[in-house]
Amino acid sequence: MKEIENVETQSPRHPRESGESLPRHPRESGDPENKSTTLDSRLRGNDESSGNDESSGNDESSGNDESSGNDESSGDDGRGGHDQQINLTHGGGGRAMARLIDSLFLKAFDNEWLSQKNDQACFSVEKGRMVMSTDGHVISPLFFPGGDIGSLSVHGTVNDVAMSGAKPLYLSASFILEEGFSIKDLEKIVKSMANAAKQAGVAIVTGDTKVVEKGKGDGIFITTTGVGVVPENVFISGDLAKPGDAVLVNGFIGDHGIAVMSHREGLTFHTALQSDSASLNGLVQTMVNAVPSIHCLRDPTRGGLATTLNEFASQSHVGFVIDEKKIPIREAVLSACELLGLDPLYVANEGKLIAICPEKEAQKLLSAMQAHELGKDAAIIGTVIEDPNRFVQLKTKFGGSRVVDWLTGEQLPRIC
Amino acid sequence: MKEIENVETQSPRHPRESGESLPRHPRESGDPENKSTTLDSRLRGNDESSGNDESSGNDESSGNDESSGNDESSGDDGRGGHDQQINLTHGGGGRAMARLIDSLFLKAFDNEWLSQKNDQACFSVEKGRMVMSTDGHVISPLFFPGGDIGSLSVHGTVNDVAMSGAKPLYLSASFILEEGFSIKDLEKIVKSMANAAKQAGVAIVTGDTKVVEKGKGDGIFITTTGVGVVPENVFISGDLAKPGDAVLVNGFIGDHGIAVMSHREGLTFHTALQSDSASLNGLVQTMVNAVPSIHCLRDPTRGGLATTLNEFASQSHVGFVIDEKKIPIREAVLSACELLGLDPLYVANEGKLIAICPEKEAQKLLSAMQAHELGKDAAIIGTVIEDPNRFVQLKTKFGGSRVVDWLTGEQLPRIC
Repeated sequence: MKEIENVETQSPRHPRESGESLPRHPRESGDPENKSTTLDSRLRGNDESSGNDESSGNDESSGNDESSGNDESSGDDGRGGHDQQINLTHGGGGRAMARLIDSLFLKAFDNEWLSQKNDQACFSVEKGRMVMSTDGHVISPLFFPGGDIGSLSVHGTVNDVAMSGAKPLYLSASFILEEGFSIKDLEKIVKSMANAAKQAGVAIVTGDTKVVEKGKGDGIFITTTGVGVVPENVFISGDLAKPGDAVLVNGFIGDHGIAVMSHREGLTFHTALQSDSASLNGLVQTMVNAVPSIHCLRDPTRGGLATTLNEFASQSHVGFVIDEKKIPIREAVLSACELLGLDPLYVANEGKLIAICPEKEAQKLLSAMQAHELGKDAAIIGTVIEDPNRFVQLKTKFGGSRVVDWLTGEQLPRIC
Repeated sequence: MKEIENVETQSPRHPRESGESLPRHPRESGDPENKSTTLDSRLRGNDESSGNDESSGNDESSGNDESSGNDESSGDDGRGGHDQQINLTHGGGGRAMARLIDSLFLKAFDNEWLSQKNDQACFSVEKGRMVMSTDGHVISPLFFPGGDIGSLSVHGTVNDVAMSGAKPLYLSASFILEEGFSIKDLEKIVKSMANAAKQAGVAIVTGDTKVVEKGKGDGIFITTTGVGVVPENVFISGDLAKPGDAVLVNGFIGDHGIAVMSHREGLTFHTALQSDSASLNGLVQTMVNAVPSIHCLRDPTRGGLATTLNEFASQSHVGFVIDEKKIPIREAVLSACELLGLDPLYVANEGKLIAICPEKEAQKLLSAMQAHELGKDAAIIGTVIEDPNRFVQLKTKFGGSRVVDWLTGEQLPRIC
């Protein structure tokens, strides 16, 4: 400190007050807010005024998270009310963003990687195969029966990683927030993510926050990316379905799409429908332990069961015959679909998977699935066939057969 | 095919025409568009009408990408003009999305992982340390002097991975598109991403596309996530700066922020300013080869040099003394900053890094940097000092000293 002879502090003007977007150059004088002070007065004055380096410097110590959160509450510029909503400073890379990260994200996700505060997370891996998957989440409404965008953003990516047979380990989370978004809602969402990650046994190890102007986003979008490791003896891919293979599903289809849409449209049904949103990595681990020779796994999200089967047909150059009677669909979902004129085969799921395995392993796989909480309603629903046309055929309840085509029009938008 | 006795095709109504968001249930009759046809007529009729399973089924063969792209051009519903802009069907999980992926993303990014068309990419890793980093990109305008959101989204994440000393290997890309966004612009952006990835030697191995309604986004947001491997003898982290260490920068600061802002505001300067947006992984590899004992590396993006140094000070519990005379800043950036009343220390960079290394290695590191195209204007700009206050002090050109504080207000919004 002794080498300092003439210290000026640079206290950039708040852009909302100055109409500017960047701190003014200190060499420009005539700015009443750009005060020149001695180092001493800066140190003394900081606790009550715009900044407190001590607290922001100490934020590695967990006890100070609370206080740095409170600093934010009181508002960087002392105007109050500043803390209720996201504003552009929360994405500016400066103090407001650092505090949001400390008081909210680090606290909720609480792990050794994130608390290193580097722009990347570092972890050890063993020799082997890894998978990586990413999903942007734009669901509307943000809160729905059975979940919210936070839990969904964890489940979605955990499931995409798990569908290779891998054990998901680490997630990243990128937030695109709209100016004006409620910080209370953000807290709820972040806590829900943290809870979902804990349940799935994964850590959210790195992240990013951007803020866009009001009207240029829709509250919050969350992109999560996950990595995981594939067991040595497991080779699962959408192009491995073979004629004769059995097709299984782990339970009732259509719950997520109908729950979200009902909520969006204000519809109510006799049975309160909930999204099936859940992390399936535990179930998948049970399944690959029982039957390592599973050929294909995929979660039928956007576009539903029909789309996933068409994807498999295209990738594996096969066809499918599916038995409508065997597909588990709740009465409430069927009623809602009939009321709304929808086909449950195209309705999104967030806690379901389609598995394809050699026919001789099908019963063993089914039993393993049924023994797991998230597979207790599992069923064998069809067979892979040779078909140069790669059609998905449905044997209807009435004894007929129809081709279940790719979704041509639009699925329910913003369902995930 | 012989087992089919009574085949109906389900051709979901287009929601723009029907006002509905999901395909109608085929059991509901009375829908003129929900035609029942024989399998034969479906096969014959498909080429001209709503779908062509043959082409979408063949899309693994590269020669057919062109034709599936053309199918999209002619419009799923034959109304024409459908291909000029993104619409909600491109995010619906059905045929339009599959074609967008085939004709654009698979073709541009062209790699073995993506062409597997699974929801995750699988790759082999050696035992060691990996890093993971994510960044959402919301820059406005999308195209700016020296780059665009596509190249930026690759550079940003490649750099965040590289700043651990790691070699970046694989990226994921998540697109959030606004309904009505120009497909031509999307193509330009995706090609620019592909080009940036190629230059950086990384592969974009997995992705996701969501579409939000007009007015709920801003054209395009791209979140990229990267993974890479850290060399055995390298340990770089923001908390490793030691008093006495030297502080280096690889070249002129402030170019990106001033280039984007000038473009946004329609300002012109004598010298055409370009963003410095670039992948720094090659430079970093050169640097860690020369000096494996580098303590800290970080790219000073949002919040600029000042913010990065304050972060290091906070993480490492040290202070800094930086010499203003030694910081490379272009005359054009200085002029623009004076004109606009900005401080270049807070202006964003996208091709710069700050390195901290033991003082005795500083000259060696500087020489290694200067020998690289992206480090030819590198300089030693300061020293790490002991400081319980964790201040970043600037020795000004005029012989004084000022504390360069955290950014309190708002940086230029949407700069990355």
